[in-house]
Amino acid sequence: MTATGATIGAPLSAADKSPVAIICGGGAFPAAVAEAVSKQGRPVYLFLLQGFADAALERYPHTWVKLGSLAKYAAAHKRHNLNEIVFIGSVVRPRVSQIGLDWRSVLLVPRLAKLFLGGDDKLLSGVAKIFEEHGYTLRGAHEVAPEILVPEGLATNLKPGAREQSDIEVGFALLHAIGGFDVGQAVVVAGRRVVAIEGAEGTEGLLARVAEMRKSGRLKLADRDGVLVKTPKPSQDRRVDLPAVGTDTIRQAKEAGLAGIAIEARGSIVVDAQKFVEEADKQGMFVVALPPSKRNVP
Amino acid sequence: MTATGATIGAPLSAADKSPVAIICGGGAFPAAVAEAVSKQGRPVYLFLLQGFADAALERYPHTWVKLGSLAKYAAAHKRHNLNEIVFIGSVVRPRVSQIGLDWRSVLLVPRLAKLFLGGDDKLLSGVAKIFEEHGYTLRGAHEVAPEILVPEGLATNLKPGAREQSDIEVGFALLHAIGGFDVGQAVVVAGRRVVAIEGAEGTEGLLARVAEMRKSGRLKLADRDGVLVKTPKPSQDRRVDLPAVGTDTIRQAKEAGLAGIAIEARGSIVVDAQKFVEEADKQGMFVVALPPSKRNVP
Repeated sequence: MTATGATIGAPLSAADKSPVAIICGGGAFPAAVAEAVSKQGRPVYLFLLQGFADAALERYPHTWVKLGSLAKYAAAHKRHNLNEIVFIGSVVRPRVSQIGLDWRSVLLVPRLAKLFLGGDDKLLSGVAKIFEEHGYTLRGAHEVAPEILVPEGLATNLKPGAREQSDIEVGFALLHAIGGFDVGQAVVVAGRRVVAIEGAEGTEGLLARVAEMRKSGRLKLADRDGVLVKTPKPSQDRRVDLPAVGTDTIRQAKEAGLAGIAIEARGSIVVDAQKFVEEADKQGMFVVALPPSKRNVP
Repeated sequence: MTATGATIGAPLSAADKSPVAIICGGGAFPAAVAEAVSKQGRPVYLFLLQGFADAALERYPHTWVKLGSLAKYAAAHKRHNLNEIVFIGSVVRPRVSQIGLDWRSVLLVPRLAKLFLGGDDKLLSGVAKIFEEHGYTLRGAHEVAPEILVPEGLATNLKPGAREQSDIEVGFALLHAIGGFDVGQAVVVAGRRVVAIEGAEGTEGLLARVAEMRKSGRLKLADRDGVLVKTPKPSQDRRVDLPAVGTDTIRQAKEAGLAGIAIEARGSIVVDAQKFVEEADKQGMFVVALPPSKRNVP
């Protein structure tokens, strides 16, 4: 079920000129994916989620749909000659200074909003299944737009030192240890001590907690100490739920006082890798994207 | 280094009438330990930590000491004929409605306050070592006062149902998986989903987070769903750092909407097991204390 190295980045069939259907949530990922697919000479047809999708996406063939009635649109493939479908958007939530407010706003959208806020593999796969039952082939956004995968060659000005490399090892080892559980896959490690593990609160909540514990004195660390380590869950369906990183992640990690970020190469998506690296350089942080084989798990 | 089943509850030598030295932090544990030791006919000598210890403890032979000058008092064993020393207190922090305030108050006490707030095994063991170097034998509070260990037979009116038993299994399995890492050993599981894992924030912070995620709608669970599972770290020195539970834990878990609590039998301490059970019954929650052999880790 998960996208393997072999299928990631597999080119779309040049002969297949049927539109790629894209269910678009919020944030900048839907535009990045639509643009990447279009550049390959393949048409797109967008289902724009009301209350989430950017209105600028109306420049593509589209229809606005309600999050609560996605199932109704599952049957639209015949009308528009749609075969392949991609879910993308709002995986990176808009940055907010106060998490409480962000969470409260979640109450305004129906239950299905959870789909686009992460944290429930089964529900996500469940809705994907509805589309598959209607004849769609579910594709990962990273399959139709490999440009959004974080590349291994990511190079910030700063590199992790010996202390940070050691923290990265501990982080990958811990995430590996909990990989079989249905739980968030990010962790903050400082001086080989695991100071915070992500649960349902998400990576933003995790980093906010570390920032708070530092401010309160609960966590006594030097400035720029500690690393955010983030990987996809081994069990998750990468077609519907790859972890996303972005310039917000950099800023949140900076606010948490961390030295840098370690992610799995080709195991996270980013709207614009170039901007991501520039933001890290601007904030004086390192980012490394390591393939699983180079993690040096002790 | 850790107290094993064989040493836990080993009776004090009846012949040894030298006082047991007790370094007393805050909360009700120091009085419980002093009383238990006294009942065995053995005298106590208390080092009462200024700003932490309860003044009612002055009924025992004592001296008030500053947290910052503990090392100075390490040399007092000859003057008072002290051989064995116990660290106890403020492992269960006073309940506060707002965590931010609690954390800020931590700033008022010197760095050593961390000792009594948990979260840093190495520092704790480090100070214990200073006393050992001065000729003391470090004993676990549960060794000199086995009454404070949570017994296996703990019986609340409510018992975990099939769903909760399944959550307990997942919780113990996850804690087992991360047991080798220096990280908090508590987790909240609901419907086999791990919703929160304890890091440096402690169990109170963990439960506050679950309560907050429920209120905000980030976590959508029925009321009284989910279990707090808590164990000692395999690596921790149980003489200086056994996890504590109490009526506050019950109330915090209730506020987090949980169905109950599962702990390791004889792997946590409680001031008054009877009151603990009564509070659980009053709040309509179950508590189970399971020996490692009965955890049914899948």
